[in-house]
Amino acid sequence: MSNTFGNLFKITTWGESHGSAIGVVIDGCPAGIKVSAKDIQKDLDRRKPGQSKITTQRKEDDQVEILSGIFEGKTLGTPISLMIRNKDHKSCDYAEVKEKYRPSHADFTYDAKYGIRDYRGGGRASARETIGRVASGVIAKKILKKTEAVAYVKQIHKVKADVNPAKVTAKQVESNIVRCPDAKTAKKMISAIEKAGKAGDSLGGIIECVIHNVPVGLGSPVFDKLEARLAKAMLSIPAVKGFEIGSGFNSVTMMGSEHNDEMSVKNGKMTTKTNNAGGIVGGITNGMDIIFRVAFKPTATIFKKQSTITSAGKNTTLKMSGRHDPCVLPRAVPIVEAMASLVLADEYLIQKTSK
Amino acid sequence: MSNTFGNLFKITTWGESHGSAIGVVIDGCPAGIKVSAKDIQKDLDRRKPGQSKITTQRKEDDQVEILSGIFEGKTLGTPISLMIRNKDHKSCDYAEVKEKYRPSHADFTYDAKYGIRDYRGGGRASARETIGRVASGVIAKKILKKTEAVAYVKQIHKVKADVNPAKVTAKQVESNIVRCPDAKTAKKMISAIEKAGKAGDSLGGIIECVIHNVPVGLGSPVFDKLEARLAKAMLSIPAVKGFEIGSGFNSVTMMGSEHNDEMSVKNGKMTTKTNNAGGIVGGITNGMDIIFRVAFKPTATIFKKQSTITSAGKNTTLKMSGRHDPCVLPRAVPIVEAMASLVLADEYLIQKTSK
Amino acid sequence: MSNTFGNLFKITTWGESHGSAIGVVIDGCPAGIKVSAKDIQKDLDRRKPGQSKITTQRKEDDQVEILSGIFEGKTLGTPISLMIRNKDHKSCDYAEVKEKYRPSHADFTYDAKYGIRDYRGGGRASARETIGRVASGVIAKKILKKTEAVAYVKQIHKVKADVNPAKVTAKQVESNIVRCPDAKTAKKMISAIEKAGKAGDSLGGIIECVIHNVPVGLGSPVFDKLEARLAKAMLSIPAVKGFEIGSGFNSVTMMGSEHNDEMSVKNGKMTTKTNNAGGIVGGITNGMDIIFRVAFKPTATIFKKQSTITSAGKNTTLKMSGRHDPCVLPRAVPIVEAMASLVLADEYLIQKTSK
Amino acid sequence: MSNTFGNLFKITTWGESHGSAIGVVIDGCPAGIKVSAKDIQKDLDRRKPGQSKITTQRKEDDQVEILSGIFEGKTLGTPISLMIRNKDHKSCDYAEVKEKYRPSHADFTYDAKYGIRDYRGGGRASARETIGRVASGVIAKKILKKTEAVAYVKQIHKVKADVNPAKVTAKQVESNIVRCPDAKTAKKMISAIEKAGKAGDSLGGIIECVIHNVPVGLGSPVFDKLEARLAKAMLSIPAVKGFEIGSGFNSVTMMGSEHNDEMSVKNGKMTTKTNNAGGIVGGITNGMDIIFRVAFKPTATIFKKQSTITSAGKNTTLKMSGRHDPCVLPRAVPIVEAMASLVLADEYLIQKTSK
Repeated sequence: MSNTFGNLFKITTWGESHGSAIGVVIDGCPAGIKVSAKDIQKDLDRRKPGQSKITTQRKEDDQVEILSGIFEGKTLGTPISLMIRNKDHKSCDYAEVKEKYRPSHADFTYDAKYGIRDYRGGGRASARETIGRVASGVIAKKILKKTEAVAYVKQIHKVKADVNPAKVTAKQVESNIVRCPDAKTAKKMISAIEKAGKAGDSLGGIIECVIHNVPVGLGSPVFDKLEARLAKAMLSIPAVKGFEIGSGFNSVTMMGSEHNDEMSVKNGKMTTKTNNAGGIVGGITNGMDIIFRVAFKPTATIFKKQSTITSAGKNTTLKMSGRHDPCVLPRAVPIVEAMASLVLADEYLIQKTSK
Repeated sequence: MSNTFGNLFKITTWGESHGSAIGVVIDGCPAGIKVSAKDIQKDLDRRKPGQSKITTQRKEDDQVEILSGIFEGKTLGTPISLMIRNKDHKSCDYAEVKEKYRPSHADFTYDAKYGIRDYRGGGRASARETIGRVASGVIAKKILKKTEAVAYVKQIHKVKADVNPAKVTAKQVESNIVRCPDAKTAKKMISAIEKAGKAGDSLGGIIECVIHNVPVGLGSPVFDKLEARLAKAMLSIPAVKGFEIGSGFNSVTMMGSEHNDEMSVKNGKMTTKTNNAGGIVGGITNGMDIIFRVAFKPTATIFKKQSTITSAGKNTTLKMSGRHDPCVLPRAVPIVEAMASLVLADEYLIQKTSK
Repeated sequence: MSNTFGNLFKITTWGESHGSAIGVVIDGCPAGIKVSAKDIQKDLDRRKPGQSKITTQRKEDDQVEILSGIFEGKTLGTPISLMIRNKDHKSCDYAEVKEKYRPSHADFTYDAKYGIRDYRGGGRASARETIGRVASGVIAKKILKKTEAVAYVKQIHKVKADVNPAKVTAKQVESNIVRCPDAKTAKKMISAIEKAGKAGDSLGGIIECVIHNVPVGLGSPVFDKLEARLAKAMLSIPAVKGFEIGSGFNSVTMMGSEHNDEMSVKNGKMTTKTNNAGGIVGGITNGMDIIFRVAFKPTATIFKKQSTITSAGKNTTLKMSGRHDPCVLPRAVPIVEAMASLVLADEYLIQKTSK
Repeated sequence: MSNTFGNLFKITTWGESHGSAIGVVIDGCPAGIKVSAKDIQKDLDRRKPGQSKITTQRKEDDQVEILSGIFEGKTLGTPISLMIRNKDHKSCDYAEVKEKYRPSHADFTYDAKYGIRDYRGGGRASARETIGRVASGVIAKKILKKTEAVAYVKQIHKVKADVNPAKVTAKQVESNIVRCPDAKTAKKMISAIEKAGKAGDSLGGIIECVIHNVPVGLGSPVFDKLEARLAKAMLSIPAVKGFEIGSGFNSVTMMGSEHNDEMSVKNGKMTTKTNNAGGIVGGITNGMDIIFRVAFKPTATIFKKQSTITSAGKNTTLKMSGRHDPCVLPRAVPIVEAMASLVLADEYLIQKTSK
C-alpha cells in the first residue's frame, strides 16, 4: 500500500531507477479535464536531470507517454496511466555497489526488509520515483484551478533568501536555475553548489512553499488534518528531514498572546492580522495563504572515501564516482509543488461530500 | 475517513468534547494479547486533566470501559471498543462562544467546512479526542514488546533541557510533573509555565521522542516511509506546528560529508558512527534508535482580550475565562508516545507480509 | 479491516453477542442531516428478537444510544457513534458449547483463525452484529431520500410468493409478521415456519429487494461495480449462500436476443423494454429499478442431535436447547435493506466527485 | 478507487480497449517469489481472443511486458507493473457506435456517469480490462502454492456437465476448447455455441470453481467474509449475473437438519459429512474444498437488429457487425480462477497478522 498516495485522487507509482520504465497510475480523476502530454512534460522538464550546470550532467529525456484515461484531450474518469522509459545506462560499476552498502542510502535497509534489491541503482528509493509524482501533480493542479502552490528554494546550506510569500510568483521562481526568487541570493546559492560539487561534496537546504487563493473549509479533522497530510507528503520525498507549517519551530519561543492570529472581517471576508497558523486551523483551511517549509539534508551521494560494510557483513570502505547532483533542491521544487497539489486536489474532491 | 488511523492496526476515534462520551474502536489487533482496563488506565491518567498544578484544574476521571474485543483478559482478534464518558459540565458561557469565533481555534474553520458545529466546546478539534489515541496506544505498545517509544519535554518556551536520548528512561520522564528527564531544567520549566498561567498567557515547546530496541527492516518505501508516517501522526496532534527526524532542520547547514552516517559492523550488528538519519533510511529502519522532535505552539486558549469576528461576520472582541492548560506539553508526552507506537505496531504487522 | 464497510460513507461495527454492548461508528456522513434516536429505533425494532410468534422468544430491547456526531438533531459531519447494550443473559450452558463445536456455526473456524473465541455465544459471527448495520442503514436511507430499497420475503422453503417488484411498498411488507407482501402466501409461510420450529428444525428462503427511484449514473466501473458491491454486502450477512441481480441464474438459459434489454426514450427519459439487467449495466445504474435476490440457508441452530467434534479434536454429539429463530428471513428483511442502502449512499457520495 | 482490488495483495488495472495499452500494477506482493513473463503469458493465452473456433476470430497476441518489480527472475517487494499493448485495430464503424448506444452494453451508463466516453469500443467496460486480472492472478497463484483454484464450464445454455469437484484437475479442464472436464458434454456445448454464433446470437452459462488444499482459518469475519469477497470478485467480471457458494440457492428448499454439515475427526483432521457450506463458515475456511458457481448472461453483442436510442436521446435501431464471442465462458475460466486466487492470496497475507 505504500506506493499509493491519496484517498479519492489517488496515485500509484511504480518502477525502479534502472528497470525498463517508471510510471504512475492516477485513479479517481474526475472526467472532462483537459490535459495533454505537453502539459505534463513541462513540469517533468523542471525535474529532469541535466537541465543546468548545477544539476547532475546525466542526460535523461524523461518523455512521458499517456497510455490510458485521456481521450480526445480530456480525462475519461478512468485510470490515467503514464509511463516514462528509463535509458539503458550503467550508472556505475555494479560489482562494487552490489557488494557494498552506500552510507545514508537505502541499500542496507531494503536488503534487510526484502532480502533482495535491484543493486543496479537506488531502485524504488531513487529520486527517479518522483517522476510519477510530478506528472500526476500536473493533473492535480488542473483540478485546483486558481489555488496554486508556488515552491522555491529558501535556503541552501547557510545562504538564506529574502522572499515575500504573499507576492512570490511561479515566474520569479523559474527566473534562475536554482529556483530562488531572490535573484541576488540565487547567485550565491549557485556558487555554493558549484563549490561543493567540485569538492565532491554536497549541500542541503530549505524549500518554502506558499499556496495562494485557498478556499475556506478545505481539509479534514483529526488524523487527516491538512497540515498532517502535507507533512507526510513532504517527508515522503527522498532526503527530507523536517517539515513545519506557519510559525513552525519558531512558535516554540512565542507566548500565546503573540502567536494567536486575531481575526477580523474585511470586505466581507475573514482575515487574520498575523498568519502563524500558516492558513490551516484544526486541519482545515481558513482562507489565508498556506505556508510551509521543508528541510532537505545534503545529498547522500558524495565522492569521498567512506567507511561502510558489505552485504556479507564485513567492514570496508567505498569511494563512489559518477554523475550526481551536489544539491537536489533546484530539482525538488516541482516535486514539493506536485505533492502539495496532490494533497489539495484530493481534499478538494473530499470537500464535495462534506455537507 | 479522517477519523481512522493505520492500515492493519487501525483505530477510529469518535466523540465530541461536550457530547456524552469519547471513544475508539481498534480493528486489526492480533488475537491473544493480554490487556486489562488497568493497563489502559495507566496511560490515560498520564494524559488526564487536573493531574498536577501546571495542568488545567478541570477534573475529569477519564475512566475507560472496555466494551468488546477482550475476553478473559486477552484480545479476541475482533474490534476492541473503548469508551470514556464525558462529565456533564458547562465549560463556559455557551452563548458567547456560540456567537464568537475563538482566535486560533477551529471554530471558524469547522463552521466553514460543515455549516454546523457543537459550539459547547472544541468538538472533535478538542484535545479530548486524543483520549482514544492514548488508550489504543497502550495496546500498540504491547504488540511492540521491547521496542519502546520514550517521549519527554525537551524545551518549554526558551528553557531547553539536556537529555541523552540513548539512555533516557520512562521512569526518568515520570519523575516530575513537567515530564522532562533533566530534573534541574524541569524546575525552570515548571516556573515558566506557572508564570505564564498566572498572566493568563500560554507557552509552547518541543517534545523529543526516542525509540529504543528498533528491529531492522521496519517501515515502508515511497509514500509510507516511516518518517512520513510519523510526521503525519505528530502533525495530527492538536497544536503541533513542526516535525523533524534525526538531524532535522540542522541537516540544512551540514555538508554531505559531515552528514552521512558511516557504517560498520560491531558484534555482528550493523551500527553507524553518527545517527543523523534518526534511525530511518529510505523509509525503513536501520536498527539504530529512532529520534524525532515535535514543535508545539503555545495553547490558543488565553485569558486576554482579543479581536475576533462573530458567526454572523461582524468584528468584535472576546475575553475568555475558565480553566485551561497554560502549556499542553506535559500532558502531550503520552500522546506522542501513543501515536509513535500506533505507527510502529502497524508497520510491525505489515512487515510480516513483506517476504 | 473486515469490520469496516464503505468507502466514503463508512461504518465500523464492533461487539460480541455476549459482551457488554454492540455498536457502530459511522464516519463520512455529511453534515446537516436530521436524525433522531427514534428514527433509528424504528428499524432496530423490525430486526429485534421476540417481535412475533415466528421469531425467537428471547427478549432484547435493543435500545440505541447516540454517543456522538449528532447535535441538536442534526449530523455534525463527525463520526456518529451508536451503542446498544447487551442484556446480561446466559443463552445456554456455556460448559457444553465451550467444549463442543456447533455444526455449521463459526465456532471451529474462529478457533482455527484466532486461537481464542468468546464461547458464550456466536461472538462476532452472531447475527447480533447486524444491529449496527441496521442502525447505520437508517442514516444511509436519509442520504438517499427518494431512492428507496424495499426488501421482502419472496420464498420460504418451498412456498413462493407472487410479488410485483415495480409496485411493492414498504407498507405492504410490514403488513404481516413474515414480511411477505403477498398476504395469502404469507399465511402459508407462517405455518411452515411454525411447523419447522415445533419440530426443532429450521427453514431458509429468498429475500428479494427492489430499489425504486434510482438516479442514472450511480455506481462504479470494474472492481466496484454496483452489483459486485451489492453481492458482497449481501454475502456478508450471516446465513446467505447466494446472490443474483436482474435475470440472475435464469439468464443462463436465455439467448442473447431474448436477454438484451432494448432501449427507447419515453417522455425524455431512457427506458428499457425488459429489465434483465436489474437496473445496472457495466456496474452503473441506468435508471431502471434495481432488483436482486438473496438466498438464505436454513438456520444452523436446530434442536436435534448432531455429530460434531470437541475443541480437543474428539468425536462427540451435541443436542442444543434454548430459544432461536426457526427461520431468520423475517428479521433479515431490514438487514438486506440496510446493506443495500449503505452501498447506495456510499456511491451517492462518490458520484459527487466523478465529473 | 474502483480500479483497485485487494487489501494487502493489491492490483490496479488501467487501460481502455481501444487505447494504446492495457495493464496492471500489483502492489504488496512479497519479495523473493520466482516469476517470469512466460509464466504470466501462459494464462494470458488461455484468455486471449482467437484461440479456437468458438471464440472471436479477432487476433490479439496479448504479449505481456514486465516493466518493474521483478529482478533477476524474482519479485522485489516493489510494485510489479505489467503492460500489454493493444493492436491498432478499428473494431467497427466508429461513427455508428459513437451515436447509438448498444443495448445491454455500458455505453449509456458511462456517458451518464462521466459525460464522456471512449466510443471506439467498450473502454473500461470491455472484457479486455480483465487481462490485468489474469496476469496478476498468475502471481497470486504462486503465493498460494498448493492451494489451487480450478474453474470449469459447468453449463452452457441448457447443456449441463457432470463433474466431480473433488477430483477435477486443471489438465482435464484444458483438454478441450470449451473448458468443460466432462468430455462428452463438452462436444454438445461446442455445437450449441457454434449454432448460436451462426445465428448471430449468443449464449450464457455457469462456471463452477473448486479450490483444493485449502488451509483452515483463512478469511475474515463480518464484512470481508471470504464468500462475500469471492462474490464481489465474481460479480465484478463482465456479464456475471449471479454467485452462489456451496449449497447456494438450493439451500433454500432444504431443512436445517438436512443442510447442517456434521463434523468429525479423521486422521487428526476435521472433516464434514456434507459440504453445503462450500468450505467457508462465518467467512473463514474450515479446510474443506471451497466450491462456488458463477452465472454468466449471454453476450450482449449480437448481430440482430435491436431497438435503441442515440446519445442525443432519439429512438433508433442498431444492427452490429464484426467479430465477437458468441459465448464468453471458455475464455472466462482463467478470469474466474484469477479473481479467486487474488482473493485467497490477499487473505493468505492478512492471515499472517491474525494472531
